[in-house]
Amino acid sequence: MRKKSPSASREVVSPDSPIITLLSDFGSTDPYVGSMKGVILSISKKATIVDITHSVAKFDVLEGGFILAAAVPYFPPGTIHVAVVDPGVGGRRKALLVKTKGYYLVGPDNGILMVAASQDRVEKVIEITNPRYGLSQVSSTFHGRDVFCAVAAHLANGVSIAEFGSETNDYVKLEFPKPDITGQTISGEVVHVDNFGNIVTNIKFTDMAEVGFERNTMITVTIGSVTERMKYGRIYGDVAVGESLALIGSAGFLEISVNQDNAASIHGAKKGTRVSISRCH
Amino acid sequence: MRKKSPSASREVVSPDSPIITLLSDFGSTDPYVGSMKGVILSISKKATIVDITHSVAKFDVLEGGFILAAAVPYFPPGTIHVAVVDPGVGGRRKALLVKTKGYYLVGPDNGILMVAASQDRVEKVIEITNPRYGLSQVSSTFHGRDVFCAVAAHLANGVSIAEFGSETNDYVKLEFPKPDITGQTISGEVVHVDNFGNIVTNIKFTDMAEVGFERNTMITVTIGSVTERMKYGRIYGDVAVGESLALIGSAGFLEISVNQDNAASIHGAKKGTRVSISRCH
Amino acid sequence: MRKKSPSASREVVSPDSPIITLLSDFGSTDPYVGSMKGVILSISKKATIVDITHSVAKFDVLEGGFILAAAVPYFPPGTIHVAVVDPGVGGRRKALLVKTKGYYLVGPDNGILMVAASQDRVEKVIEITNPRYGLSQVSSTFHGRDVFCAVAAHLANGVSIAEFGSETNDYVKLEFPKPDITGQTISGEVVHVDNFGNIVTNIKFTDMAEVGFERNTMITVTIGSVTERMKYGRIYGDVAVGESLALIGSAGFLEISVNQDNAASIHGAKKGTRVSISRCH
Repeated sequence: MRKKSPSASREVVSPDSPIITLLSDFGSTDPYVGSMKGVILSISKKATIVDITHSVAKFDVLEGGFILAAAVPYFPPGTIHVAVVDPGVGGRRKALLVKTKGYYLVGPDNGILMVAASQDRVEKVIEITNPRYGLSQVSSTFHGRDVFCAVAAHLANGVSIAEFGSETNDYVKLEFPKPDITGQTISGEVVHVDNFGNIVTNIKFTDMAEVGFERNTMITVTIGSVTERMKYGRIYGDVAVGESLALIGSAGFLEISVNQDNAASIHGAKKGTRVSISRCH
Repeated sequence: MRKKSPSASREVVSPDSPIITLLSDFGSTDPYVGSMKGVILSISKKATIVDITHSVAKFDVLEGGFILAAAVPYFPPGTIHVAVVDPGVGGRRKALLVKTKGYYLVGPDNGILMVAASQDRVEKVIEITNPRYGLSQVSSTFHGRDVFCAVAAHLANGVSIAEFGSETNDYVKLEFPKPDITGQTISGEVVHVDNFGNIVTNIKFTDMAEVGFERNTMITVTIGSVTERMKYGRIYGDVAVGESLALIGSAGFLEISVNQDNAASIHGAKKGTRVSISRCH
Repeated sequence: MRKKSPSASREVVSPDSPIITLLSDFGSTDPYVGSMKGVILSISKKATIVDITHSVAKFDVLEGGFILAAAVPYFPPGTIHVAVVDPGVGGRRKALLVKTKGYYLVGPDNGILMVAASQDRVEKVIEITNPRYGLSQVSSTFHGRDVFCAVAAHLANGVSIAEFGSETNDYVKLEFPKPDITGQTISGEVVHVDNFGNIVTNIKFTDMAEVGFERNTMITVTIGSVTERMKYGRIYGDVAVGESLALIGSAGFLEISVNQDNAASIHGAKKGTRVSISRCH
């Protein structure tokens, strides 16, 4: 499932059961998310709308990109993903529609789409310019509703991507920070603290394998300025309740966790905190 | 889109793809919202259910009405909107079904429906009395589930509005507070602080135009007891990050914002805080 | 509606309009819930997905079971309910599929399904073992996505329950704590504090009736160590704003509430606090 590729690369969405996902930093207390869904359903009656999250930290393009990239592989081929963390709304930043091998991404040109895009194969990046596919009155502060969701809904209806504008190579190529491997030590950073307090790093399973770390051995973990020995396990229950361990989380990244407790609070970690993994003790 | 009118005024909902929206002060930690959706789907299999928000401040009928009114124009004609902020549940307050030119509104008779109703054209207000269209066991504390959602789902199935009860003219006519214009000064108040901390006032774009305020000029804004000069701009990026500005938000109201920061915290504003706009300095 | 039984007991779900509900302790800030929905829609295009809540207190199996049991009766017969509060994920705990008279329950074998199961009639408990119906790469930390939602979606497609594994009688039989009735006194405990601060106890309407308490009489309520006389009413408005009362909440349990205020804060009650009801004063 996770590795399943779309049956064929298409430039139009099959209009019988289109799926549109939404991700934003809008929170859930305002009319904004509801309005976006109203716009989609006004244009595309058959669209199935799925919220990924609307609780991205305000204006945090990189966190939005990380969460989007973690969820996207689980949706069927042809899904349209709208991501709106958009501090530059109404200004000169472009509006983008990205077609990858397996899916479509719609959002502002600030890099938020590119983590999810680059983990698949980018086929085309379109700068959205055709006013025909936005609402007739485009507000200057809410392109999520007036541009991105309108475009997604028209795309769901089977409008070809070329209709929305022209191909561009000039867009923000945000990259996820990569960990540094020096000898037997991997140095990375915290990219997300999840709702359980699990400390998600940018260190991948493949990085751990490259250096030769093996499951069920003890490793040395430095979080910020504190160093601790812990198990490199497979499941939370590999250690007693309340004990720390490192494992590969469900998105394929190394996490520092505490069995049935909040690792971020216990280890004082937050986004950007340095994490390094080594063998020495 | 925003101004598009329904193709025709109807007294029954077209039953092929009915949309029901939900708004409440129930929060998202309890079984309440899920139960409402179960009731709808038990009666109307084809209904598409959309959450506007369930985070209205507890018992705050006016805030619920404001958010409802801001979201409603973006949904297709014929959409059924259920709004449940209902401190008087089980008491003598009526249950209402309002048919406007473009949509249906279902909820308690405490005014919550009337901001959204009056911005469209009210065609009929029905007092819901027919026990046939509620659940067989109506609880005394949860009419959102047992009455309003049941009625909405039967309406979605094509039941005519006259079936639910008789027309009434005796209902709560809650009005949104209107700003006061004296000479060159507009005095209003904060009606909503959004999730970004934007300070949404009850001053409309048309009020600003009436007094002759023009975009990209400096204006004098008094929030509570503090007066400050700021730009009356068009987009957040019209000022530097961290600077205040006034602009027309996505619902058509004047907002005081801080570019990429939380204006309500910075200016100490909350719902009800007085805001006035003038030219003098 | 509430008492309506499914038209017939079935071992396969009717695949024309399957409903899958989701309940978890995942919160709404991570890619987890979105990923689960992507998995479901990848397998079962027609599934209607409904969130009950994702805000169960972390690892609190009993609270999850309580909320699930309160929502489940309102869904149509044949609905598939997935509940994931799963501190033992990846360890030796089983994965279960429970078929009751009216619905299906899918989740970990830690008791979370059994409150909802036992209020209906349990027909079969299946231990999920067939790897064919999980994702090809099952993570060790996220069976909600890789096992439970995949199973639910295949079930929604009409796969027979026997395909998922073999029947078992060896599963965790979590029971909801029962109140104790001694003479004219009922002693129970707080099982949930809802979003309004209503104090939900494990004392049922039938317990109150058994002892002979009648509506609109005064009763003596002890919450923790504080005793107070209050009305045993029917609706919040039976007492003045700010006054306490006892009533039967929408799920059929005795609640201590304060009209338009937060009873849990005012009475210092939380989950597990002892509550007793008597006549004496």
